Amino acid sequence: MTTERMEAFSDGVLAIVITIMILELKPPDGAGFGALREVLPAFLAYVLSFIYLGIYWVNHHHMLRATEHVNGKILWANLHLLFWLSLVPAATAWLGEHPAATAPTAVYGLTLLMPSIAYFILQNAIIAHEGPSSSLAAAVGGDVKGKISPLLYLAAIGLAFVRPWLADAIFVLVALMWLVPDRRIESRLSHPPHPARLVGE
Amino acid sequence: MTTERMEAFSDGVLAIVITIMILELKPPDGAGFGALREVLPAFLAYVLSFIYLGIYWVNHHHMLRATEHVNGKILWANLHLLFWLSLVPAATAWLGEHPAATAPTAVYGLTLLMPSIAYFILQNAIIAHEGPSSSLAAAVGGDVKGKISPLLYLAAIGLAFVRPWLADAIFVLVALMWLVPDRRIESRLSHPPHPARLVGE
Amino acid sequence: MTTERMEAFSDGVLAIVITIMILELKPPDGAGFGALREVLPAFLAYVLSFIYLGIYWVNHHHMLRATEHVNGKILWANLHLLFWLSLVPAATAWLGEHPAATAPTAVYGLTLLMPSIAYFILQNAIIAHEGPSSSLAAAVGGDVKGKISPLLYLAAIGLAFVRPWLADAIFVLVALMWLVPDRRIESRLSHPPHPARLVGE
Amino acid sequence: MTTERMEAFSDGVLAIVITIMILELKPPDGAGFGALREVLPAFLAYVLSFIYLGIYWVNHHHMLRATEHVNGKILWANLHLLFWLSLVPAATAWLGEHPAATAPTAVYGLTLLMPSIAYFILQNAIIAHEGPSSSLAAAVGGDVKGKISPLLYLAAIGLAFVRPWLADAIFVLVALMWLVPDRRIESRLSHPPHPARLVGE
Repeated sequence: MTTERMEAFSDGVLAIVITIMILELKPPDGAGFGALREVLPAFLAYVLSFIYLGIYWVNHHHMLRATEHVNGKILWANLHLLFWLSLVPAATAWLGEHPAATAPTAVYGLTLLMPSIAYFILQNAIIAHEGPSSSLAAAVGGDVKGKISPLLYLAAIGLAFVRPWLADAIFVLVALMWLVPDRRIESRLSHPPHPARLVGE
Repeated sequence: MTTERMEAFSDGVLAIVITIMILELKPPDGAGFGALREVLPAFLAYVLSFIYLGIYWVNHHHMLRATEHVNGKILWANLHLLFWLSLVPAATAWLGEHPAATAPTAVYGLTLLMPSIAYFILQNAIIAHEGPSSSLAAAVGGDVKGKISPLLYLAAIGLAFVRPWLADAIFVLVALMWLVPDRRIESRLSHPPHPARLVGE
Repeated sequence: MTTERMEAFSDGVLAIVITIMILELKPPDGAGFGALREVLPAFLAYVLSFIYLGIYWVNHHHMLRATEHVNGKILWANLHLLFWLSLVPAATAWLGEHPAATAPTAVYGLTLLMPSIAYFILQNAIIAHEGPSSSLAAAVGGDVKGKISPLLYLAAIGLAFVRPWLADAIFVLVALMWLVPDRRIESRLSHPPHPARLVGE
Repeated sequence: MTTERMEAFSDGVLAIVITIMILELKPPDGAGFGALREVLPAFLAYVLSFIYLGIYWVNHHHMLRATEHVNGKILWANLHLLFWLSLVPAATAWLGEHPAATAPTAVYGLTLLMPSIAYFILQNAIIAHEGPSSSLAAAVGGDVKGKISPLLYLAAIGLAFVRPWLADAIFVLVALMWLVPDRRIESRLSHPPHPARLVGE
């Protein structure tokens, strides 16, 4: 079973999830520039979520390029990831309406935490199928960012109960950390890793 | 005529139907965690329908992999299936608003029953086109799950008039029954069935 | 320039247009079966439009299979067709709200008339590019259905001012007329037309 | 890394953005033809934005045909372009509600200005990756339209504060200017440019 149709379906869902968010961004009430201010929090929440979904799309893209075959387990792990990502628009809309409140901030953190775990499960399902000597297994290596992110989301969820804006700061920080595209996979694919170097990593 | 464009179109519709459901999942009124409780039934209905549509997508994927050519009849049988699946979001939203009521539960059961029949028709149209000795014909074999499911949906529709929560239990049960991906087709494609073994099934 | 990306984009738009219609089909107010009756006209309008868009998708599919190359003019003729088809959901929703009224019926007729003209323009742009001896030129031949349909839509628009239900009857009639898939192209592609037989058509 | 998946994803987003706009085009209140007049500004804004997005899709299509490989930077430049294009539906809806007001007109101009800059960045990222001797670099040449358009959008944003209808006139003018598809790339690809002729351009 090739990865093609799973890629196409994932692209479809991700493209729709990204653009569904803009549907939640209602045109302002009233015709003045002042009306724009009230939609500003919703707009900023949209920008942040757009970047997060963009990060997932780019990394998903890189991961599937390093994947040669998929099985039923991988299809379901992928659907599981898409399920959690599909909750992002609703959480974004809630956060945009109540940017300083605890519950929407914590729930937003949860809708970032869950796909990061689902992505990890999907990555492991692919590596289990492709084998430990596959290019993907070598490429993800230590996967520091993938392991730190869930911890940071957890911290943000906790901080949402104390200082919601600190949680927001963490969301922005993690996004910036990931904006650097995952060059590990890219470079490994062009230059197959030298076994000796792998040890040192 | 190859199956490619029909697959792409089906993926498009399924991806949209899945994500349209989240649009019906409005952000809660109010900023507290209590506001989440009122959207819980809608959320659970969303999870169930997401799983059902995921099942259809995965099985549809497996079926078309075992299909080599399509004709006009198959295109229409596929559109027929997509039509019924496109009703799932509206039925899900109605059930989410009135989780304990008879009519929304029965209608939800109907929107599960009809695509299961449409899937059966599509499967038969493909087998009629590919021939009884095709790999798909051998793979679906007795198709016990495909035959039991419509009966269980019918039972659930009946139970909706007595105890709606029993109907809900059946919806969950059938979903769990299908969550095991259709390994029959997968395994048959990798290991062409031995005629003698087919008899014993 | 190959037809692939134009097909993929058209499929995307058509898939979305089809499923956007279901978004307009709001869950009924209230939890009883009686509440279903009030959404019945909207549901029937949805079914009719779903069939129309299905017809366009299947015929578009057949036409592009008979097309080998596209140019800028064809891309725009295709966008023109998609533009008119994109109006169908709004017209369907309006008709579903006021099924017996003149204006929504006439406007619905217009949103069927315009894509039928746009389809004709697209077909001609493809034939102009592929040449009169192309398989598509031979396949569309007299194209009786394609020429009668706009006239019937025009008649329906006129009848909407007198008896809206007569216009509805014509909409159903034309849909049934087209539901027979366009076998002309299908058969020509499998059996290249014999020049002598073309004369007799 | 091939351009295929980036094309597919872009098509998905563009197809959805285009059709999301129609969702904002609510069916008129009331059943008479008079009710159509109140949705006319929203309809005209929809037509204009549909043409703009169509222009982006066709030019994006031409550009990626002239592109052989993509890297992470190009993926992000493409997401950046899609981000700005995803704002067009909301700006269109706001302009459609308040067609004669300054703020919606200026914001609409901004949602045309930003993607024109993003497109320029994407084009440069591709040329930087493909090399100055690539067919794309030769094809875009002086790129007069691409350089004039942002200036015209800027002028329109300024005019929105004085005479909003003059800004609207510029939006229509730029659309007409682009409706002529970008034949430069098309012709260069069929007839590789003669070095001597490039100098004269």
